[in-house]
Amino acid sequence: MIQYKRISREQLYAFSVAVLKKLGCDEVRSSIVSDVCLEADMRGISSHGIARLPRYRDHIQQGLIDPKAEPELLFKTGVSAVYDGHHGVGHYVSKIVCEKAVELAQKNGMGISVVRNSNHYGIAGYWAEQMMKNEMIGISSSNTAPLVVPTFGRQAILGTNPIAIAIPSYYSSPIMLDMATSVVSRGKLEVYSRNLQPIPYGWAVDAQGKPTDDPSEVLENVKNHAGGGIVPLGGESTQFGGHKGFGLAFIVELLTAGLSMGTSSLHTYKKHGNISHFFMAIRLDLFGDSDTLLQHMQQIAMEIKQSEPSIDKSEILIHNELEYKNREDALKEGIKMDIPTYQKLQSLAEHYALSLH
Amino acid sequence: MIQYKRISREQLYAFSVAVLKKLGCDEVRSSIVSDVCLEADMRGISSHGIARLPRYRDHIQQGLIDPKAEPELLFKTGVSAVYDGHHGVGHYVSKIVCEKAVELAQKNGMGISVVRNSNHYGIAGYWAEQMMKNEMIGISSSNTAPLVVPTFGRQAILGTNPIAIAIPSYYSSPIMLDMATSVVSRGKLEVYSRNLQPIPYGWAVDAQGKPTDDPSEVLENVKNHAGGGIVPLGGESTQFGGHKGFGLAFIVELLTAGLSMGTSSLHTYKKHGNISHFFMAIRLDLFGDSDTLLQHMQQIAMEIKQSEPSIDKSEILIHNELEYKNREDALKEGIKMDIPTYQKLQSLAEHYALSLH
Repeated sequence: MIQYKRISREQLYAFSVAVLKKLGCDEVRSSIVSDVCLEADMRGISSHGIARLPRYRDHIQQGLIDPKAEPELLFKTGVSAVYDGHHGVGHYVSKIVCEKAVELAQKNGMGISVVRNSNHYGIAGYWAEQMMKNEMIGISSSNTAPLVVPTFGRQAILGTNPIAIAIPSYYSSPIMLDMATSVVSRGKLEVYSRNLQPIPYGWAVDAQGKPTDDPSEVLENVKNHAGGGIVPLGGESTQFGGHKGFGLAFIVELLTAGLSMGTSSLHTYKKHGNISHFFMAIRLDLFGDSDTLLQHMQQIAMEIKQSEPSIDKSEILIHNELEYKNREDALKEGIKMDIPTYQKLQSLAEHYALSLH
Repeated sequence: MIQYKRISREQLYAFSVAVLKKLGCDEVRSSIVSDVCLEADMRGISSHGIARLPRYRDHIQQGLIDPKAEPELLFKTGVSAVYDGHHGVGHYVSKIVCEKAVELAQKNGMGISVVRNSNHYGIAGYWAEQMMKNEMIGISSSNTAPLVVPTFGRQAILGTNPIAIAIPSYYSSPIMLDMATSVVSRGKLEVYSRNLQPIPYGWAVDAQGKPTDDPSEVLENVKNHAGGGIVPLGGESTQFGGHKGFGLAFIVELLTAGLSMGTSSLHTYKKHGNISHFFMAIRLDLFGDSDTLLQHMQQIAMEIKQSEPSIDKSEILIHNELEYKNREDALKEGIKMDIPTYQKLQSLAEHYALSLH
């Protein structure tokens, strides 16, 4: 049983903003980083929550992230925009670039904006949802540090390369798929490693490209570029479709680093983060009356929700439904924080003479 | 060792066109169906090749497909179009609707066109490649007959819902991912069933939603809507990311049936096929100089291609590379056809007093 504390969003937000200001971020940057992180925490995705603050601090102090940099618009058409993030704060860069996609879609129906030389942008779903709030289909994707081994390979050359797609509807929770294109995230391996537990075969391969159940070895190998890593969605072979997850990760490289003339995952996190992102906004009323479409989307979701569960399950979960319930709960009762994370943030608070709550 | 014959593309094309004309298709419809099917055969995807002719014949004779119907443009903006396929030949409907996406993109940079009340359109990748030939990113997707069980469910409520994405580049083969969002296709279960072989656990679930290794039971259950079916990419549980494959299939339902106000996979193949498709074309030069981008895409692909293979493999396969080699080979040496398929087509030839080769 994991022990945890509950702390209100307001308290954590104030703390996070204060820390980021100490690190040289202005009001806007501190606010957007804190908002994105706390959206992850509220949804129960604590791997992308404010537990990342010490890592962002390290990246700023090491010069990977420039807390003052402004993204620069390099190229533009009526439906597209290409930016250079100039190694700025990933969430801030993404806010500007994502808003551009929305602006283009508002004017011309659709918009794609891409950016190179950015940094970690939090959960991909945050950005897809921002677009969806404007009654648009929102698609957001990013490459990441190299962690994933292609089918038949043994080098972690691909990122976990998330794809998030949000679709407007009248369904009771916002419909959004937010998935790493790998079978699991690095965060999951870290949990097993800390608990000295073996991972299931089918999550990762060793330095030779063979299936392994040792998470610590995999993490160590990835860190040292010694070979091996996490496998794509579908597993290490083609038997269960690993080449499909590999294909999705590959397409993400092309849509992010490719279209922005950025750096593929393999070459990220050297002098700078050098992460590339992709944002696409598509206005729902491009396809007819919005209200009718919002209802139709709801009906399709309801049909799946109400289909019969397997004999040992009680219900089918629509994507983002659980996260949305977590979020509602966190807003009412406070954000759940496990004790190691709490202690980590507490020591950050002490270092900067701030109070966590 | 599977026995096969080699027949030239020209001979099979002439045969296929002749059969389709006997079924009431005009020149244009007969040509496009034959071309799409033979592209599948040449690539080695014989499940979507001209072995489907008897099934198309049945669908025309049963009235599911109307060989004379013309798609109708219902709604249009500068970047989008919505069609009703009026139960026409799926490949013909798709030709018109896909060409509209290209036309919109030529004018305004991007185009999305969707259609409801269509029929089976062949391999999704065919359409993605048509768009790519115009130096555009091409995305094509379709819902299908209900075959796939959602995570935690036991009803085949989703289609195998393929997604194809083609990206222009200078790479030696056209880069294209064409994947069912299920772990395997129905065709694969049919092969195991015919050979009385068990399928691996992790491909399908029985009527109660439990993993099974019996392909014949699954196919029978799906046919009778008795529960059970193929599982999404990632498997039947969340442990290996089955909810991600489920999410991709769900998003396909929303982009195809959702945006076109069409019928979800669950309600297809009743009086008519009622299949919905989605096409998106994105001009590459929306992101800068095409030549530079085509080179950059090639470099990213090369980097993956040249990364080290696992200890028991000789090379990493880029998506569509193998299919492209098969195609080159088939154009030179003739299309490989297994004996049961050959016999099936031979009897079709005799029925219509045509010659197969």
